[in-house]
Amino acid sequence: MTSQNIYDNPLFFDGYKKLRDNPDNANVTEEKPALFSLAPNLGGMSVLDLGCGYGENCAEFMRLGAANVTGLDISEKMLAVARDKTRGINYICADMGDLSAFEGSYDIVFSSLAVHYIADFSLLCSQIAGLLKNGGYFIFSQEHPLTTAPINGISWTKDENGNRIHYNLSDYAKCGRREVSWLVDGVIKHHRTFSEITNTLITHGFCIERVIETVPDKETIKRIPYLVGDFHKPNFLVMRARNTTNARS
Amino acid sequence: MTSQNIYDNPLFFDGYKKLRDNPDNANVTEEKPALFSLAPNLGGMSVLDLGCGYGENCAEFMRLGAANVTGLDISEKMLAVARDKTRGINYICADMGDLSAFEGSYDIVFSSLAVHYIADFSLLCSQIAGLLKNGGYFIFSQEHPLTTAPINGISWTKDENGNRIHYNLSDYAKCGRREVSWLVDGVIKHHRTFSEITNTLITHGFCIERVIETVPDKETIKRIPYLVGDFHKPNFLVMRARNTTNARS
Repeated sequence: MTSQNIYDNPLFFDGYKKLRDNPDNANVTEEKPALFSLAPNLGGMSVLDLGCGYGENCAEFMRLGAANVTGLDISEKMLAVARDKTRGINYICADMGDLSAFEGSYDIVFSSLAVHYIADFSLLCSQIAGLLKNGGYFIFSQEHPLTTAPINGISWTKDENGNRIHYNLSDYAKCGRREVSWLVDGVIKHHRTFSEITNTLITHGFCIERVIETVPDKETIKRIPYLVGDFHKPNFLVMRARNTTNARS
Repeated sequence: MTSQNIYDNPLFFDGYKKLRDNPDNANVTEEKPALFSLAPNLGGMSVLDLGCGYGENCAEFMRLGAANVTGLDISEKMLAVARDKTRGINYICADMGDLSAFEGSYDIVFSSLAVHYIADFSLLCSQIAGLLKNGGYFIFSQEHPLTTAPINGISWTKDENGNRIHYNLSDYAKCGRREVSWLVDGVIKHHRTFSEITNTLITHGFCIERVIETVPDKETIKRIPYLVGDFHKPNFLVMRARNTTNARS
């Protein structure tokens, strides 16, 4: 199945760009620090970034000493920004939903906030295992399963001042396709439970090494008190898994 | 810290007994099948059951061919029932919250719905690792982290017919002590997130092998349609982890 290419939708692209330009967005304050906290020393490493978007993480991998970095994304518009902003990175326009035509042997595969767009996580894990050297790392972030769960979109119950009292959790145990409104209507995501994600990785020979469910730090909450509500439901799930079965090295 | 011994409270004990005597309770329909589905072949195995309660699982381990079974529980009242109902099992009254005085070398440590009563999961994992042979299994169930999360007790939003629309999720990211009303007031549990549980196991040398978040099967929902609401929030978390660092064998 071909993945949706929502990032080439001009309205979505513009909305997304504005969101990411805000220095208080949760990608900057939570997701990126968590993802990089799980990275081993990148010195001399061969790195693949799946769903690289603007190439910001690719540039950071280079800065941290990676020997070579390949960025893959389905969106030509995102890659145009990436090519304009960053140098020395090999960018490829392709759908990470099927990497069968893609070859390579990497020390680390990163993926930032992209796997929840992929319908077949089992195929993805299998293909990533095939692209990793023995002992190689798959380090990824995604929307938290509690975020992707509700079939009718996420919602909160708030008090009269707008503070969040609780998250309205529904459909958590029903893995599958979700069509949500986020910047534009009709954005397709795929919900998977924590157990589904974990077991799929294990089935494809990965050993789970570390799991993070991100929440804002004290400094961010001091600046934006509303975010204390994120402690009811974390924003992102970030995992490091290690390839233990691939004989290539 | 000594664990609470709520099961020796006569009111709690009677309420719990009634609950477990109901063949439609979720322990029978979900938790026990999930726990046993993760068990390897028990033939000739040395088994320890932490928080064994009535000893029902201990008896089942014997029936499945275990060479020897030790059941440990903090409650003398529970163990009195266990000793009365089952034969050939070594029962010990002790607090699984601190196993430092306990010796042994087991192939499998089971624990059914007990670890959420334990304050220090890290100490527990460390002590279980020390009681397992190399390659031994720790297989446990607990209340699902989404159940243990709310500081003010669990609640649901329902429609006018009493059907559950969503689970009111709060405080998920705040690990720690919870005092809840369940059969009696003042029951002490300890909430831990998925990541906290997973990372603690990994830190103590366990490899995560399988995770189950239980929901009722179709047959049970046909009999009790209200239970379809459990798909909003699973009842139990069940895990199999394997000891990879202990040199004993």
